Amino acid sequence: MGKGGNSEDAVSGKEHGEENMAAWLLGIKTLKIQPYILPSLGPYDVKVRIKAVGICGSDVHHFKTMRCANFIVKKPMVIGHECAGIIEEVGSEVKNLVAGDRVALEPGISCNRCSLCRNGQYNLCREMKFFGSPPTNGSLANQVVHPSNLCFKLPDNVSLEEGAMCEPLSVGIHACRRANVGPETNVLIMGSGPIGLVTMLAARAFGAPRIVLVDVDDQRLAIAKDLGADDIIRVSTNIQDLDEEVAKIQSTMVTGVDVSFDCVGFNKTMSTALNATRAGGKVCLVGLAQSEMTVPLTPAAAREVDIVGIFRYRNTWPLCLEFLRSGKIDVKPLITHRFTFSQKDVEEAFETSARGGNAIKVMFNL
Amino acid sequence: MGKGGNSEDAVSGKEHGEENMAAWLLGIKTLKIQPYILPSLGPYDVKVRIKAVGICGSDVHHFKTMRCANFIVKKPMVIGHECAGIIEEVGSEVKNLVAGDRVALEPGISCNRCSLCRNGQYNLCREMKFFGSPPTNGSLANQVVHPSNLCFKLPDNVSLEEGAMCEPLSVGIHACRRANVGPETNVLIMGSGPIGLVTMLAARAFGAPRIVLVDVDDQRLAIAKDLGADDIIRVSTNIQDLDEEVAKIQSTMVTGVDVSFDCVGFNKTMSTALNATRAGGKVCLVGLAQSEMTVPLTPAAAREVDIVGIFRYRNTWPLCLEFLRSGKIDVKPLITHRFTFSQKDVEEAFETSARGGNAIKVMFNL
Amino acid sequence: MGKGGNSEDAVSGKEHGEENMAAWLLGIKTLKIQPYILPSLGPYDVKVRIKAVGICGSDVHHFKTMRCANFIVKKPMVIGHECAGIIEEVGSEVKNLVAGDRVALEPGISCNRCSLCRNGQYNLCREMKFFGSPPTNGSLANQVVHPSNLCFKLPDNVSLEEGAMCEPLSVGIHACRRANVGPETNVLIMGSGPIGLVTMLAARAFGAPRIVLVDVDDQRLAIAKDLGADDIIRVSTNIQDLDEEVAKIQSTMVTGVDVSFDCVGFNKTMSTALNATRAGGKVCLVGLAQSEMTVPLTPAAAREVDIVGIFRYRNTWPLCLEFLRSGKIDVKPLITHRFTFSQKDVEEAFETSARGGNAIKVMFNL
Amino acid sequence: MGKGGNSEDAVSGKEHGEENMAAWLLGIKTLKIQPYILPSLGPYDVKVRIKAVGICGSDVHHFKTMRCANFIVKKPMVIGHECAGIIEEVGSEVKNLVAGDRVALEPGISCNRCSLCRNGQYNLCREMKFFGSPPTNGSLANQVVHPSNLCFKLPDNVSLEEGAMCEPLSVGIHACRRANVGPETNVLIMGSGPIGLVTMLAARAFGAPRIVLVDVDDQRLAIAKDLGADDIIRVSTNIQDLDEEVAKIQSTMVTGVDVSFDCVGFNKTMSTALNATRAGGKVCLVGLAQSEMTVPLTPAAAREVDIVGIFRYRNTWPLCLEFLRSGKIDVKPLITHRFTFSQKDVEEAFETSARGGNAIKVMFNL
Repeated sequence: MGKGGNSEDAVSGKEHGEENMAAWLLGIKTLKIQPYILPSLGPYDVKVRIKAVGICGSDVHHFKTMRCANFIVKKPMVIGHECAGIIEEVGSEVKNLVAGDRVALEPGISCNRCSLCRNGQYNLCREMKFFGSPPTNGSLANQVVHPSNLCFKLPDNVSLEEGAMCEPLSVGIHACRRANVGPETNVLIMGSGPIGLVTMLAARAFGAPRIVLVDVDDQRLAIAKDLGADDIIRVSTNIQDLDEEVAKIQSTMVTGVDVSFDCVGFNKTMSTALNATRAGGKVCLVGLAQSEMTVPLTPAAAREVDIVGIFRYRNTWPLCLEFLRSGKIDVKPLITHRFTFSQKDVEEAFETSARGGNAIKVMFNL
Repeated sequence: MGKGGNSEDAVSGKEHGEENMAAWLLGIKTLKIQPYILPSLGPYDVKVRIKAVGICGSDVHHFKTMRCANFIVKKPMVIGHECAGIIEEVGSEVKNLVAGDRVALEPGISCNRCSLCRNGQYNLCREMKFFGSPPTNGSLANQVVHPSNLCFKLPDNVSLEEGAMCEPLSVGIHACRRANVGPETNVLIMGSGPIGLVTMLAARAFGAPRIVLVDVDDQRLAIAKDLGADDIIRVSTNIQDLDEEVAKIQSTMVTGVDVSFDCVGFNKTMSTALNATRAGGKVCLVGLAQSEMTVPLTPAAAREVDIVGIFRYRNTWPLCLEFLRSGKIDVKPLITHRFTFSQKDVEEAFETSARGGNAIKVMFNL
Repeated sequence: MGKGGNSEDAVSGKEHGEENMAAWLLGIKTLKIQPYILPSLGPYDVKVRIKAVGICGSDVHHFKTMRCANFIVKKPMVIGHECAGIIEEVGSEVKNLVAGDRVALEPGISCNRCSLCRNGQYNLCREMKFFGSPPTNGSLANQVVHPSNLCFKLPDNVSLEEGAMCEPLSVGIHACRRANVGPETNVLIMGSGPIGLVTMLAARAFGAPRIVLVDVDDQRLAIAKDLGADDIIRVSTNIQDLDEEVAKIQSTMVTGVDVSFDCVGFNKTMSTALNATRAGGKVCLVGLAQSEMTVPLTPAAAREVDIVGIFRYRNTWPLCLEFLRSGKIDVKPLITHRFTFSQKDVEEAFETSARGGNAIKVMFNL
Repeated sequence: MGKGGNSEDAVSGKEHGEENMAAWLLGIKTLKIQPYILPSLGPYDVKVRIKAVGICGSDVHHFKTMRCANFIVKKPMVIGHECAGIIEEVGSEVKNLVAGDRVALEPGISCNRCSLCRNGQYNLCREMKFFGSPPTNGSLANQVVHPSNLCFKLPDNVSLEEGAMCEPLSVGIHACRRANVGPETNVLIMGSGPIGLVTMLAARAFGAPRIVLVDVDDQRLAIAKDLGADDIIRVSTNIQDLDEEVAKIQSTMVTGVDVSFDCVGFNKTMSTALNATRAGGKVCLVGLAQSEMTVPLTPAAAREVDIVGIFRYRNTWPLCLEFLRSGKIDVKPLITHRFTFSQKDVEEAFETSARGGNAIKVMFNL
């Protein structure tokens, strides 16, 4: 199944008694749909029939290189973590969900015991088990077992695909929270890829009055404009152009850039973000293209421009669902390609996502 | 007058009717004591007879290069900004001070009208007039006129020299506030120069239970140890040693480094600070040796290690004076050299400060 | 001039050389339009031709009783403080405004020297001089002189009447900021009078997903519903009904009331707010009907429901104007009555405002 | 065993194979030492031999009335929750503790699944199971089974009795955190009972420069003075004296009371706290003597004096142990009476605590 078409309402055609199948990453660019025996259902767990799974940049990294940052795939692993589905079975102590409920799944299971978890920063937990991050199996499968408190019931007017989009949207929301975006925050976003776009949608929903998107690619900028950017600015990759481009950005926001998001993570993008932000503002580093960066750090420090980073997200699903329910955020235009959960489609879907181009979000309908 | 000796109680020997003299910076390494005609006394101003002036690193920059960062000395300017003195005359509307009061002077006059001033971030005001920062005349003078609300009465047990030390101490206090140091904050400080030391004293006064100082110089580290560092670690300037040194630092704080202060500002010191700090911690960039820095920024961002900078300070004098009054901070050991306000001494004092070595704080007694 | 009609575009018909007239409060319910000699124009001041002035509850208090809380009118005073106008003349140092600019005026002049001002909490300044709060003259006058940094240029699509509405709207905005209202905050508002309504508009603009208004009056509730309340609940003044009414309120917000605003300030309204708010939530006390209150304080404290109050506002005009410019807030429906600045109309306007009834905001067009 | 004497080093004389005994609350003022069969040891649990248990005001409430606030003892329950002991056995997954470790126990087990737990506010969890709060059994027993992450290893220089004191001290620490006490916070404390005293010790450790204690009882005030209060003020219970007493309090802190703690909870104490606190300050309501209170709420709100409450504490044990280790807090003087864990002593110990008088903390040594 190629681009377009919405199978949200399609009948899965599978009987519930059937064997559970999952997409196993076996080697570089090698995905096989094979049986996946689920762990037993604990008292606070639910079994979820997965209906929608999106492909994330980190999934593509695993697919292409068997690793992502320091996480290395050393043995076969079920891939995928952006997902939504329908409750099939609930554990003995589960009170907030029943079979048939449509839910979006938060993919990370933290230890709940360490000081970071106890302090509300569970995304930084060192014992996190996260769907599709080695060695933890992911969610591109017919069924998964997951803690009930990480499954969030979808409002009636939110589709399962939109439910799966809560995961990438959470990145934008966590970034906006970390940077304290609100109705007085003029926002600059470096990079108009999927993460730049969800950050833009989140910033708008947090009330940002003015958002400027910057990219090197006219096509991606056009998409940003369609999705609501107040201004778009095309820049070069040449660091020599920095001062001129910063001046151009600043001229679009006469009261100053309060918060910048670098959704790319190169020397050039981060330097632009740092120099363009007003004294006392913030730069949130979201994209992580380069590990070591050469940037004008001290001039920023001397203007008290803070730099904050993000690692995934925390406590974001309820807000995502509220934004989707109310229509403050519409993620549907981001879903550009759809595939079935078949051996033929799986690798093609990942190749499509890897190619980028006009693909923003590639979605499986199971 | 050379090193040592405390002229705090010395009689100035000057008559009040005499001509006001100041140390004018006329060119590179050229300071002349010449007459300084004061501005008229406004209704909310006071006239202060200056009794103690310390030399700051930025003063030395002006002295040696006629500039500091982007601030350039284009015409003769009275130098100096760390000072304390005795009130001689008060404006018609001044109610909180009377002649004879001993006061410490906060050196920066902000506009009080812009949005940053109105929001309490007056240190970022773009129209700041700051003692001895071009083109504003400084305070190494017999007398200055200054707004009364920037003159803070000294507690009885705080000397005028200690009053002058409020200025460098304010840098440490503002850094600790920006990094939110408190009784649960394990602190790493890169650099055991004057700024590293005042940051250490401030962190201790804010309750930091454990403070580790890192430097390349054994003598400076010994001073830090004497002044209360829990641990001192000597490191190299070689970036190759980074991982090993970070491991060594972390081994001294088993519960993790919560906040690091880079009081130097080189690639190596900032990289060490970033890598040594725990997930969810903060790095405060205080020293500004390098403008552009090459550092592992994204790994820090991905552990949500925030980077905050500082520009001078705001609202710090009352807290400085409380710390000095209560004895929570003792700045006296930092004053290593003392000079008189004479043509002969002035340049020698600046040369002494510029040489560094065993000089931490060089102080004029007027 | 009676209810309705918008004289925004009417020509004033006055020559600029004429004598300046103002509405002087001379005694209880005694207002006279008499000459008002303006103070001289300081270097940072502007002279503003006032075009729109709204009547506030505190103005009505002064009109009816010659006092408001502890502020007593002891000598003739120009009344009024919600205003907007056109710049006529600017002081020698004013750079951001020119004659002809349309501006909204923030009415309070703080000292800018005390620790509260320097810390950004200038609304708590003890030396505040506030339009129409004794003994400071107000702004129901042809012209006033005011600091330029308290005059905010209106966007092209914001009328002078809307500019005058920034003042009451600021109360709602400051309340929402103090209570930290955002896109996850379910809001309860006790009282559907003018302050309850501006608080509702502000909470909506800050992103509150669900707002419930509570009042004893069906007509006022209907207005709230028209202006966008998600739910309205009619209650009694009988404290016996408390538990039942709290249960009813809570049933409208299944995830809990995060923040309550008591825009009335009676035992009953505050008790309702305290009991209806979820553990860890906040109650903001805005209305001040009763001084001493009998309320269930300890049960609220034991659920960590914080109580925050407000005094006027700080740094709100730019955000007001942004909300009005963007259309996130529409204050026009709140203006129910309009009057000219004539001796005949002035007292009638105040009587209209004092009667309440269907009058929300009574506005003068000058 | 009567008052005085420190059995810290006493040998328990019990064999580990023996039957586990606990103090069961069977009815009003009826405590019996009877067998207590422990729950099985989960993989993350530890079994602790209890060595020190303090008696809290809430224990006394249960003892005297079989209830505390809304919590009612409906069936036999092991009493007690302030405790420390020695690890006897660890579950299969416990890595941070081994048998023989001396630990202080945080008494509350939260669900770790609800939004409050996930957000770091686990003390507000609605499913909290708390030692000795009905229907959960407490810790006045030879042994208990408890989650390992709620058992905090004691520093070598901290005794088991001091470990048990972490619980009441946590109340003071949570109060200081909620009120944001730091080195610039002048503190007023209403009430010099056990909670007032631990709040004072905590405020001092957080750096409060000046602390004034207020009580109606000279003997209790003398204790506060001994333990470090800067000033003590005796007041009456008569509300008529309010203004005079507030003036007296304020005269002791010329720069204003920044934070007040009402550790009593009567109309008079709370009114005093509200009126004595400076504009922009905070009042923390800790004591809960009266449920409904009649207090001057609106004048406080109009000066932006916030009211914050506390429910128990969160994430306090590591800080308690650091304060005890460093000597910043010494809780030993608070332990005024000691008893053995015998049928004869148990009820006498509770009666001693109930009588108050010179008893601050009554401690069992097991």
